[in-house]
Amino acid sequence: MADTILVINPNSTETVTRAMDAACEPLRMAGGPAIECVSLQEGPPGIETQFHVDSVVTPLARIVSERQHDCGAFVIACFSDPGIHSLRELARKPVLGIAECSILTALTIGEKFGVIAILQQSIARHARYIAALGVRDRLAGELPVGLGVTELVDAGKTYERMVETGKKLRDDHGADVVVMGCAGMAHYRKPLQAALGIPVVEPTQAAVAMAIGRVRLGWHLL
Amino acid sequence: MADTILVINPNSTETVTRAMDAACEPLRMAGGPAIECVSLQEGPPGIETQFHVDSVVTPLARIVSERQHDCGAFVIACFSDPGIHSLRELARKPVLGIAECSILTALTIGEKFGVIAILQQSIARHARYIAALGVRDRLAGELPVGLGVTELVDAGKTYERMVETGKKLRDDHGADVVVMGCAGMAHYRKPLQAALGIPVVEPTQAAVAMAIGRVRLGWHLL
Amino acid sequence: MADTILVINPNSTETVTRAMDAACEPLRMAGGPAIECVSLQEGPPGIETQFHVDSVVTPLARIVSERQHDCGAFVIACFSDPGIHSLRELARKPVLGIAECSILTALTIGEKFGVIAILQQSIARHARYIAALGVRDRLAGELPVGLGVTELVDAGKTYERMVETGKKLRDDHGADVVVMGCAGMAHYRKPLQAALGIPVVEPTQAAVAMAIGRVRLGWHLL
Amino acid sequence: MADTILVINPNSTETVTRAMDAACEPLRMAGGPAIECVSLQEGPPGIETQFHVDSVVTPLARIVSERQHDCGAFVIACFSDPGIHSLRELARKPVLGIAECSILTALTIGEKFGVIAILQQSIARHARYIAALGVRDRLAGELPVGLGVTELVDAGKTYERMVETGKKLRDDHGADVVVMGCAGMAHYRKPLQAALGIPVVEPTQAAVAMAIGRVRLGWHLL
Amino acid sequence: MADTILVINPNSTETVTRAMDAACEPLRMAGGPAIECVSLQEGPPGIETQFHVDSVVTPLARIVSERQHDCGAFVIACFSDPGIHSLRELARKPVLGIAECSILTALTIGEKFGVIAILQQSIARHARYIAALGVRDRLAGELPVGLGVTELVDAGKTYERMVETGKKLRDDHGADVVVMGCAGMAHYRKPLQAALGIPVVEPTQAAVAMAIGRVRLGWHLL
Amino acid sequence: MADTILVINPNSTETVTRAMDAACEPLRMAGGPAIECVSLQEGPPGIETQFHVDSVVTPLARIVSERQHDCGAFVIACFSDPGIHSLRELARKPVLGIAECSILTALTIGEKFGVIAILQQSIARHARYIAALGVRDRLAGELPVGLGVTELVDAGKTYERMVETGKKLRDDHGADVVVMGCAGMAHYRKPLQAALGIPVVEPTQAAVAMAIGRVRLGWHLL
Repeated sequence: MADTILVINPNSTETVTRAMDAACEPLRMAGGPAIECVSLQEGPPGIETQFHVDSVVTPLARIVSERQHDCGAFVIACFSDPGIHSLRELARKPVLGIAECSILTALTIGEKFGVIAILQQSIARHARYIAALGVRDRLAGELPVGLGVTELVDAGKTYERMVETGKKLRDDHGADVVVMGCAGMAHYRKPLQAALGIPVVEPTQAAVAMAIGRVRLGWHLL
Repeated sequence: MADTILVINPNSTETVTRAMDAACEPLRMAGGPAIECVSLQEGPPGIETQFHVDSVVTPLARIVSERQHDCGAFVIACFSDPGIHSLRELARKPVLGIAECSILTALTIGEKFGVIAILQQSIARHARYIAALGVRDRLAGELPVGLGVTELVDAGKTYERMVETGKKLRDDHGADVVVMGCAGMAHYRKPLQAALGIPVVEPTQAAVAMAIGRVRLGWHLL
Repeated sequence: MADTILVINPNSTETVTRAMDAACEPLRMAGGPAIECVSLQEGPPGIETQFHVDSVVTPLARIVSERQHDCGAFVIACFSDPGIHSLRELARKPVLGIAECSILTALTIGEKFGVIAILQQSIARHARYIAALGVRDRLAGELPVGLGVTELVDAGKTYERMVETGKKLRDDHGADVVVMGCAGMAHYRKPLQAALGIPVVEPTQAAVAMAIGRVRLGWHLL
Repeated sequence: MADTILVINPNSTETVTRAMDAACEPLRMAGGPAIECVSLQEGPPGIETQFHVDSVVTPLARIVSERQHDCGAFVIACFSDPGIHSLRELARKPVLGIAECSILTALTIGEKFGVIAILQQSIARHARYIAALGVRDRLAGELPVGLGVTELVDAGKTYERMVETGKKLRDDHGADVVVMGCAGMAHYRKPLQAALGIPVVEPTQAAVAMAIGRVRLGWHLL
Repeated sequence: MADTILVINPNSTETVTRAMDAACEPLRMAGGPAIECVSLQEGPPGIETQFHVDSVVTPLARIVSERQHDCGAFVIACFSDPGIHSLRELARKPVLGIAECSILTALTIGEKFGVIAILQQSIARHARYIAALGVRDRLAGELPVGLGVTELVDAGKTYERMVETGKKLRDDHGADVVVMGCAGMAHYRKPLQAALGIPVVEPTQAAVAMAIGRVRLGWHLL
Repeated sequence: MADTILVINPNSTETVTRAMDAACEPLRMAGGPAIECVSLQEGPPGIETQFHVDSVVTPLARIVSERQHDCGAFVIACFSDPGIHSLRELARKPVLGIAECSILTALTIGEKFGVIAILQQSIARHARYIAALGVRDRLAGELPVGLGVTELVDAGKTYERMVETGKKLRDDHGADVVVMGCAGMAHYRKPLQAALGIPVVEPTQAAVAMAIGRVRLGWHLL
């Protein structure tokens, strides 16, 4: 259908894409836009560096071009919002990034948002993006879970660290809402929120939610 | 249904509420939340001053309290977002303001947003709100249509001035997206956008669109 | 006398109003404006929520209207500056808030101001106000004394916690001037300042001090 | 008397000092602080450059040292607030600058303040100061009267240009309060305000008004 | 030599690269680093869109990798600083962008910098970058020369428009220093500066100048 | 030679000047500008207060005037950049400050810069300067080494504390580049950088490096 929301995971890890797909389930409504999640075959297994971010723009542009005729909106599902501005130039349909949408959504929930990053090395990249977004004054802080790559495969440990990191954002940095700075971990949102006692925003869900309105309203048809 | 989105027009002018209701039509989906628009009987005919803004908070709080059991989210449909923070304290459901939601939505569309105000006297009030929102750096400017109250009843003249004001925001202030700083004028969105050649955001639609996602995701259930 | 400064305590607790009255004593001069302190009978015992803030605006407006003929200026004596912008619209005389005046005064004393809040839940509300005021870059931080309502009646304990909180603002947040984020506690200002070794600003005194100049200069007579 | 407010004109032009003295008249109250205005003999005829600003710090420091025993506060009466931070280091009494006090006062009156500068070349200097003060987001703009030195002696022409400049700040830059960016012109305040229809702040009066409270409260006695 | 500064023009237009090379001449010193200018063969004829910016990152990364052994620093010579953060991740040598270096240099020359853009469509992209750089408060404004692609080949007309645009930045936006927002036009710098009467910064020269120090100091050798 | 860079140490301590001179050695190139370092005889032994900063402006102005004929640029080598704006008014040659140049250089190296101050009392002064510079959003924090004057003569202890302070800036404040907030300690840069594992910018070197380009390009010849 021409109003399908295409959620593109810019990495090639299919399990992440499946997790995103499951996370979109509550947003699928009879009479509403279809929501389709795809992996970027050309992408790396995970977006971990600025070079990863920059190098997926060309293949993302190809998908967006190919799917414009049958899609009503595109969601780029990586917390670095790779290629978001390039894709907006190219597309005749709305393109949303999960970082921007989750942060903007958090602004309607709390006064200061904290971000839980997976990798320490992503924080400077996110800081540049948040500054460009113009909302730095609302940022409480961003902290990494601080696990090595081998430890990150341990889901229990990862979750445990997300809780610890969220508590630090809440208690030491004054965050009253937390954004999960990663895609594909929506299943942790609810327990994390319960553990922290403050709202938690899952970015893919936040972006797809905003895309639904954009598709229905057809504002992009200039 | 418990997931109804209640759109509250904080003024008592029923024609405005009807216009809002019509504007929500594209956002009604078979399997999606019901969208109900009501006027605030105790409200003034229009919200024109800070005192109007402050004085509707108590009756708004009453409605929100009364309708919590059967509503999934509340949208306060006045560009001054009256009582938004009070209502968030009181409600166990999400409360969204049309000013914040339209501005945040505009941030995903252009680099600098302009706001078309109806009254000159609202601009300082909006400026305080935009500053508190923390997005002042993205504001291109806000300009009034500059019509007296008697002239505002002339729809043709009002629209004409909205176009002129929008062009000034675009050409002199660098706006590449325009937010309509008023409720109940959604029917002007499309022609205004065509006349300006840059995207135009209608605030009630922007807020209801965001509310749909919030209702579906149930994030407020802490 | 027409140049009386009317200090309105927006809560109904008479002992707080009496404490304010005593705090104004050094500002009473033979040839200067009279300073009168009144409680808001319709107010809650304390302003603790955003809804409290919003709900006192209407009764405040009534007092300001009634007393315009014989007052030269109004001071709203609650650290949330309730209704300040509504009252400025209505009054033909200057209206000052104790939060804004104490913060602006602190800017002439130190480089970074810290705020001691009574309640944790007030901090987000104050943060919005400080952002709207446009002086967020000078804020070192705001911290609550962190006592429950029952403990706050213990004056000794409250003072002790104010000292601890002030030291934390000074040592961990870099504050070199502290603003007391509450009204009616002027008697703690001097010992608190001595304990912290950095200047402490008491907000009601700061606002009344500014009001004296405004009354004498008659700048409001546009 | 030990609570005299010493207003120091950092230039040597006695007529300016006399004008300041007259401007302080409404702030002299029976039972209030004495207000004494002096010229800086070592100062240039006018403070027109950054070098002028820097070069008066040493003689200002000497006066402040000499008069600490019998003064309760010092006001530095030049819109560049020369030496303000040096003098605060040296003095055991409050030191206020007329630029900071007038700008902070304007923040309690309007949403966006405009500044009328005498010389174009002062604007960058003031911009650095306003940035350091941390209130740049509230600045509507600063514009010079744009007269050559020989024309500035023509009082009628100077006033006329102040009106024109003020109107430009109001209409093109959105100022709703204007600060006179110069000392010794208090006699223009009232007609200028009438001509502009928005409040006008005179800086020496604003600073002396704030000094009165500081003297009375004795907050500097750490 | 291992301390060569490699200036990479990310477009494939050799005449632009030659112009850059000539612009570097004053920075070549007998005992200083060699300065070599190369075109990106894979690049488009000109960098005109965000997609152009993103699409040159991969080939830029390849050049930087290949030339690390014999280069002491890299300058990316396009005013959008394409790939700057990716390249910094990859390189063991300093990587400088001409936009950042020219803007930072301008901050040491004037209070408010204006930018002359070639294309209107680049301004939003530059705005995001300036915001990320954290120096938006020093920006007077950015304006395009406003010529179509066919007119831009007319050097005389282009220069004429740069002068007009610079004057507008100076007179209407308050710029006291102007940055040329394009590469390969260093020959216009001197006459442009003379025509405007305020300093003009040429970005490739600014960046290469900073690179010399970085090479000589060897700070990158962590 | 007319293109000599004159580095002026605004204090009178010759050993500091000698240390600066040694630090400039890598920046001396055959065919490049001569670099000469001088002490300010009239300066205090160290610049420790705002009054020290202000009081050296007049003698600095004298040196700059006297040496304009044979110098191509001036570097003011104190981390408070004393007199920088006065000297720019007076000089027909570029004048650079080591604080601004090191901070701007740090912006090209990391996302958040930390500053190691020698004295606690300098931090508010530096904060004002960084705010005026317009780059406060990039500041991670500034911390003092926290040694008394007598302890500062112990080089080993001072270095040890610089390492501790740098680690605190890195770990608790998120700095990914550190600026040495003092002059004459360039010999610590390399070991400090090794100890911290993040880049360290030495301010005199940063400023002299930028001065070389300025001299070679002759941009100041308006």
